Amino acid sequence: MAKSYSLMIHGGAGALDKVKNLQDAAPCLRSIRRILERGQTILKRGGPALDAVETCASLLEDDPLFNAGRGSVLNEHGKVYMDAAIMDGVTLDAGAVAGINRIAHPIKLARLILEKSGHVMLIGDGALRLARRHKMKMVPESYHITEQRLEEYKKIRQKQRGKMDALSEKKHGTIGAVAMDKKGNLAAATSTGGIPYKKEGRVGDSPIIGAGIYADNSLCAISATGHGEMFMRTVLAKHIADLIAFRKMDVESAARSGIAYLKRKVNSRGGVIVIDKKGRYAACFNTRTMVRGWIARNGEIHCAYL
Amino acid sequence: MAKSYSLMIHGGAGALDKVKNLQDAAPCLRSIRRILERGQTILKRGGPALDAVETCASLLEDDPLFNAGRGSVLNEHGKVYMDAAIMDGVTLDAGAVAGINRIAHPIKLARLILEKSGHVMLIGDGALRLARRHKMKMVPESYHITEQRLEEYKKIRQKQRGKMDALSEKKHGTIGAVAMDKKGNLAAATSTGGIPYKKEGRVGDSPIIGAGIYADNSLCAISATGHGEMFMRTVLAKHIADLIAFRKMDVESAARSGIAYLKRKVNSRGGVIVIDKKGRYAACFNTRTMVRGWIARNGEIHCAYL
Repeated sequence: MAKSYSLMIHGGAGALDKVKNLQDAAPCLRSIRRILERGQTILKRGGPALDAVETCASLLEDDPLFNAGRGSVLNEHGKVYMDAAIMDGVTLDAGAVAGINRIAHPIKLARLILEKSGHVMLIGDGALRLARRHKMKMVPESYHITEQRLEEYKKIRQKQRGKMDALSEKKHGTIGAVAMDKKGNLAAATSTGGIPYKKEGRVGDSPIIGAGIYADNSLCAISATGHGEMFMRTVLAKHIADLIAFRKMDVESAARSGIAYLKRKVNSRGGVIVIDKKGRYAACFNTRTMVRGWIARNGEIHCAYL
Repeated sequence: MAKSYSLMIHGGAGALDKVKNLQDAAPCLRSIRRILERGQTILKRGGPALDAVETCASLLEDDPLFNAGRGSVLNEHGKVYMDAAIMDGVTLDAGAVAGINRIAHPIKLARLILEKSGHVMLIGDGALRLARRHKMKMVPESYHITEQRLEEYKKIRQKQRGKMDALSEKKHGTIGAVAMDKKGNLAAATSTGGIPYKKEGRVGDSPIIGAGIYADNSLCAISATGHGEMFMRTVLAKHIADLIAFRKMDVESAARSGIAYLKRKVNSRGGVIVIDKKGRYAACFNTRTMVRGWIARNGEIHCAYL
């Protein structure tokens, strides 16, 4: 039997919690399906997992429905600042970027950092400098800001002035992708605009290796989504990887155990997608919804949000 | 018997690798001893571990011998940009700051972020904004730059022009502190100027929860030092905590196992200090030296670098 491949992507936990019927979730699910097809094309022809997760993440960044790249939520000053990371399970090489704007695809900058910087994480202007040196396409700040996010921002600001808790308001998920290619190599990618009305300079879990993302060929590839601070405090992606490493858990139990730990330790909600070294996949979340999609053993694409 | 306390601090792994005799190491060791005494005063009178590690870290930041705060190494443009983090083992609350200057004590800003920001990590101008709002003392950029670091920077720049590998040149360790107070609460702190001649915007492991720092009352408190990128890729602090959690290792074995994992997975060198929930401590490193000090059961202060 030809060696198989595996791919799973998500568009955020909790983002569709207020959706009442399938029809309202349909645009997100259609987008997830279309993006999985693109990732499948790469993996089917024997392309690397790292390329598959980068491509899927960059397409999710393109879609304004998701809180990453175009369509990112706005911070307290009405600005977009994005974080992203990519990790190669073969070598544990990783690239992460935080607090950037004017880059159409933060995940591509994360990949550039992985390959060309000699560092793991670059932030702000330093990251943009590397992007420019490598002729990465820059876009105006307005490119990332959609009409809808601006409306939401204005509503939160109004409530903020009335001292209501804005952060508990509108939730939009981070995006992520995990893959195993035909060679059995694993990779993971995450990208996000963060949380709405976040303070200037806030960095969440998405670009933090071990918190929002992790990949190790000998264990698994993970992408997380939820209240970033809670994933950072619990170092949740590494926690799940260590459940597989030290407790010999299967991928499903490890994902479930990880989300239970998130609830128990810091009383929080979120979700994870995980693929192990055999290509077995699991999605687990304790929000009402998590938009996600995966490719089954027979090559069929599946999408779900409940 | 009155409940005991525990404290261990370090001034970097590898920093004194070229030191030939005790006399040359003496200034660092004297400083470590003096700072431990200050930390001991806090813990002896029943003060919290969090205060003890913050105080020790801020005193290490003051001392230009160590690569944190004043005496930080310079980046590729001859500028100081610092990272720091602090973590409370009671709640898993954490505060981290990256890419800042003009703050005399980055560790105090990390503590402010832990307590006042609602976030875990703030970077650059956003972090400085919080500092200003809380009337934190600002210093001119020149405050952090010592004559010696400037000399070293110039030497590296010269070599860079001749295409020699500058990063392998002069090593200066991150600083860190871990403590258990009389109530049995754990805390950890790290602070650094990063690696010499680092690229603009580079962030290392020191402010990354799970990489350079971790604290959980039920397990241990950890501070790491070495080539930051390698600690990020291996998520080493969380790895060691999970060896204690899942493999039931004692603190000494976990520290040793962690450093062996660092060597095996990414072929790197560095060191860690760890205190477990019973106050047992361990320091482990695979560099030739690590400047460190601790308080023994009988209250005596010990310092070492080999």
